[in-house]
This record gives sequence, structure tokens and C-alpha cells, in this order.
Amino acid sequence: MDQADAMLRPIGVISTPFRTLDECPRNIRQLDPPPLCRVRLDAAYVPGLLGIDGFSHLILLYWLHRGREPRMVFKPHFATEERGVFATRSPARPNPIGLAVVAFEGMEGADTLLVRTLDCLDGTPLLDVKPYLVSVDCQPDAAMGWLAPHRTR
Amino acid sequence: MDQADAMLRPIGVISTPFRTLDECPRNIRQLDPPPLCRVRLDAAYVPGLLGIDGFSHLILLYWLHRGREPRMVFKPHFATEERGVFATRSPARPNPIGLAVVAFEGMEGADTLLVRTLDCLDGTPLLDVKPYLVSVDCQPDAAMGWLAPHRTR
Repeated sequence: MDQADAMLRPIGVISTPFRTLDECPRNIRQLDPPPLCRVRLDAAYVPGLLGIDGFSHLILLYWLHRGREPRMVFKPHFATEERGVFATRSPARPNPIGLAVVAFEGMEGADTLLVRTLDCLDGTPLLDVKPYLVSVDCQPDAAMGWLAPHRTR
Repeated sequence: MDQADAMLRPIGVISTPFRTLDECPRNIRQLDPPPLCRVRLDAAYVPGLLGIDGFSHLILLYWLHRGREPRMVFKPHFATEERGVFATRSPARPNPIGLAVVAFEGMEGADTLLVRTLDCLDGTPLLDVKPYLVSVDCQPDAAMGWLAPHRTR
């Protein structure tokens, strides 16, 4: 993988009610209902949405653009021990790519997806939209390791 | 997001039995059991694995390094109509970031994760490891849109 290969291009922008990191909820699913967010694709990528109707959930990848230096080990604020970054969903990762499984509520115009359960900052650059597939993405019996006692839903 | 911000750095390499794109299975879950794969982290990132034991499933992000030109619209080989790339999991995406939910089978040494249900090419650069969280990543009732009749598991 050379550096030219590993360049990302934003394909759109995400609008949420969260203007600062402090405003981002720890668990968006604790808000009832979670706020409606907008995911607007740049014109060149709008044709790629063909056939997206009918999926109830999507996976969004986005760039955590408020760059924080990656921390390999740290103590999450609700934890008693230090944890490695790959055992957390902290944004301070070596490659700061955020991932959210969102409920897809339909289109607004031709270029904007309406979604819920998204907790990123307003203005976050969008990297990818993938259909959520129960057949490969859903693991109802997954064990949550050290996070199990901290589960909020 | 300027270009300097959007540079990815591989954090390790993925070893699978699949040496060519033709060898990659369409649905890894049709193999029983799916082959054991190895995800080796570069030394600098190994501390980030602290606390990963106890998670039964992980989400891997990786760079689909056998670059194919993104195609916004195409006809998947098992489909009857054209679909947009964002309604598929095709690797020919604007940002070719692959995502897999994998079963975590434990460590081999300090730097290598043993996983199953991974279908990428041998030698794929690793971008991120995230713990799979039932509370946010699992949507058992998700509708699969146009892919529903093609579900293979």
C-alpha cells in the first residue's frame, strides 16, 4: 500500500445537531427518539444511491476530522482500568474512521439520506455508505468483553 | 478535510487463504467452518490490543488494495437490474475501505488476532480493529432491500 493508494476523498457531508464534542452523546440510543440527521452526497456520487431504498439500516463510514492524536492505551472515563484503543470505540485511533449503524428513514431530495442514531459532529466528512446486511453484520450473541457491565442499552 | 488529514496508515496486515480475487468466496459463511485467518499488527500498535480478550466478535476495516476504479452504477452478477455502489458491498467504491464482522478466536502470540469469516485477499493492509457491540451494531430486524431474495444465509 503506497501513500497514493491510501488517500481518501470525502464523498459528502454529515449534518447533525452536535456542534461540539461535548454535545455528542455518549450513547445516541439513550435519546428517544434519536435526532434526525442528514447525510448529503456530492453530486458525482448521487448515482451510487440507486437501489438503496428498501434497506432499513445502513453503515456509514466517516472521517473523524477533529483530529486527536491516537492513544494506544488510556483509561476510558467510565472504566477502572486502562484499555487499548482497539478494545474501545474511541475516536483517537491510528486511522480515525468512524463507523455507525444507522436507521435509514428515506431520502430528502435526490442527494440527502435521512438517518437516525448517528452521534458524530456536525460537518463530519462522509467516506462511505454500505447497506447493513443481517446475514453478515448481525451477531446477536456477541460478547462485549470489558464493556459488558457498561452497556447502556 | 484537507488531504494531509485524510491520509491512512496501515497498522498491520491480514493473512487469508485467498490469493486471487477469484479465490475470494462470495459468502464466507457458506464455508463450514470458515477458514482461520490471521491479523498481524505492527509492533507500534500492539499495545492498543489491551483488553480485547472477552470480545467474541470484532469489526475489521481494511484497505481494498487491489484498486479497481469505482463504479457508481453496475449490474451485480447475481442481479437483474443495475444498482448503485452504495446499495452493494462491492469493493469498487470511491473510498475502497472493506468492513468485516469477524469471530475473534483469540491471540497467536502478542501481535496476531485469529479470526474467522473474513473473505479478503491475502496481504490486505489492516486499517482498524473495533470491538463489535451488540448494543449499537446489531439490528436483527433490518430489511435487506433488493438483496433480500439473494440472501445466502
